[in-house]
Amino acid sequence: MKKVTMLDIAQKAGVSKATVSMVLNKRDGNISEETKSRILALAKEMKYIPNHLARSLSTKKTDTIGIVLPDITNPFFASIARAIEDRASYLGYNVIFCNTDNEINKEQKYIKVLISKLVDGVIFISGGESSVSIEMLKNNNIPFVLVDRYIDSYREAYGVYCLNKNGVIQGIDYLYSKGKRNIAFVKGPDTLEISNQRLEGYKNAMNKYNIYNENLIFKGAFNIEGGMKSTKLMLESNEKIDAVFYSNDIMALGGIKVLKRRGISIPEEISIIGFDNIHISQVIEPELTTIAQPIYEMGRESCNLLIDIINSKFIPNKQIYFETHLIIRGTT
Amino acid sequence: MKKVTMLDIAQKAGVSKATVSMVLNKRDGNISEETKSRILALAKEMKYIPNHLARSLSTKKTDTIGIVLPDITNPFFASIARAIEDRASYLGYNVIFCNTDNEINKEQKYIKVLISKLVDGVIFISGGESSVSIEMLKNNNIPFVLVDRYIDSYREAYGVYCLNKNGVIQGIDYLYSKGKRNIAFVKGPDTLEISNQRLEGYKNAMNKYNIYNENLIFKGAFNIEGGMKSTKLMLESNEKIDAVFYSNDIMALGGIKVLKRRGISIPEEISIIGFDNIHISQVIEPELTTIAQPIYEMGRESCNLLIDIINSKFIPNKQIYFETHLIIRGTT
Repeated sequence: MKKVTMLDIAQKAGVSKATVSMVLNKRDGNISEETKSRILALAKEMKYIPNHLARSLSTKKTDTIGIVLPDITNPFFASIARAIEDRASYLGYNVIFCNTDNEINKEQKYIKVLISKLVDGVIFISGGESSVSIEMLKNNNIPFVLVDRYIDSYREAYGVYCLNKNGVIQGIDYLYSKGKRNIAFVKGPDTLEISNQRLEGYKNAMNKYNIYNENLIFKGAFNIEGGMKSTKLMLESNEKIDAVFYSNDIMALGGIKVLKRRGISIPEEISIIGFDNIHISQVIEPELTTIAQPIYEMGRESCNLLIDIINSKFIPNKQIYFETHLIIRGTT
Repeated sequence: MKKVTMLDIAQKAGVSKATVSMVLNKRDGNISEETKSRILALAKEMKYIPNHLARSLSTKKTDTIGIVLPDITNPFFASIARAIEDRASYLGYNVIFCNTDNEINKEQKYIKVLISKLVDGVIFISGGESSVSIEMLKNNNIPFVLVDRYIDSYREAYGVYCLNKNGVIQGIDYLYSKGKRNIAFVKGPDTLEISNQRLEGYKNAMNKYNIYNENLIFKGAFNIEGGMKSTKLMLESNEKIDAVFYSNDIMALGGIKVLKRRGISIPEEISIIGFDNIHISQVIEPELTTIAQPIYEMGRESCNLLIDIINSKFIPNKQIYFETHLIIRGTT
């Protein structure tokens, strides 16, 4: 079996390949209605599929975008990627995905590959020190949109974020209103700006209530193991704790495992709150109270923004900030 | 800022564009070492990135593969996709991903787009009645590998599967050895061959022990809601049940939620077993006993197989079957 070409259609229709090309590329002003419909019917019957590659070479557009993210198996990034792909597909674009594992070398390698593949644009969830990657995109004139992970030195770049600091303040306000005073905080990795933004929210809110105690700040990776390790250290610290704010949901799930194994009851002895509202925060029992990011909307808007840039549309706001909201469930 | 071209390098090096092209495309037999190293140094310094598109048009290779799957936010498919992308990247390929939501129209649309984008091959996780999609791939001579979801009418196609039936038998054998006799089974959607393969394993094993009772078979979608709904129906049926085998882990997680809410203790009153061993089966407490598929290995091997086909290598086995294994954890 062999791919159907314009030549095959031309031969069957008894016309030149140029005629077929004109019809299939809608440059058919000079061609009779009869020929046109015969060619279109044959193209359909023979299951002809146009070759985008040849078209791309003349239009310089590949109708493909790249998404660079830490790890697609992380439910938060899977949701963003899903939203982007849904929207891209709707707008006629394909999505290439790349997992960087937050490793800067991998990130740079992928950026190079995406540039060489002539993607029309890139949605970029930084893995940390991303300035070389971003400079490469700029030097090659590839439009890009930062998502979720704010980068201080690129505050002027196109980006879609949530209001991290306010989100944490919402959570502390709620815990305070429930009578909690010894609220621990588990921070994410120092290399990520969002870790610091969330910590800042914690410090602000705790200071506001005069209950700030720096011994209650712990640190972990943004994954289950990070939540488990930091919680073990927390328990060993012997600090009095009646609530824990984890910087993301996955960490909170890891923390809850450790607490349950130690026989600590949630929420009776310790209240737990996470950040993100990933789908599985509703899978566990009790379900996780969390600060919800509108993950799907953030993904969709980042895709809209990128494609607007690609199509040189007017962009009223280069940065889009989403509000978080508190979702009260069983762990508080 | 503007993309660096061969012409830019040529002008800076004081040579012709053709010379630069020859050096950068390793057709440099006639070019002096001095010129060669000057051009290569300039290409590096100016951050030149080659244009794959022009090369693809002559080689007919895009170094891109497509992966068609039901939903990247399902942790099972995210793991397979991750394994495929890791391996593809290692072998110099990019991966376009497409979410079909098990909808046949969406599936066919994506297959058309992938063909028109001239992907070198497709890894295909069927969403149900996929014969039109598969015929399109065949007619256009696009290599493809089926993964996970076996399709009876394409048993001769390249494919990577696990031994579903044996896996369920392993699980029932174990539950039987633990003294369980009233073992319910939650089947997946009828349209998927793997649902039937797993059901067959259940029937075989239950008949072997003379404890088969068709009233203990329930049905649900392969997601949390499917597990919750089927479990509610199960509880309403008033059948005596001391163990439940869910056809996948996500369903089992949904089922466990319902059982916990009804105050049924796991594993004391009802033992639970799932299928897949997705990462979050270890997140819940108690952790889920399950029949593990080697998800990552299956993804990796499907990518190896596809790229071997693309490169016309000798393929000793068109179908690769992986064994499952029982992982005993807290829910049994």
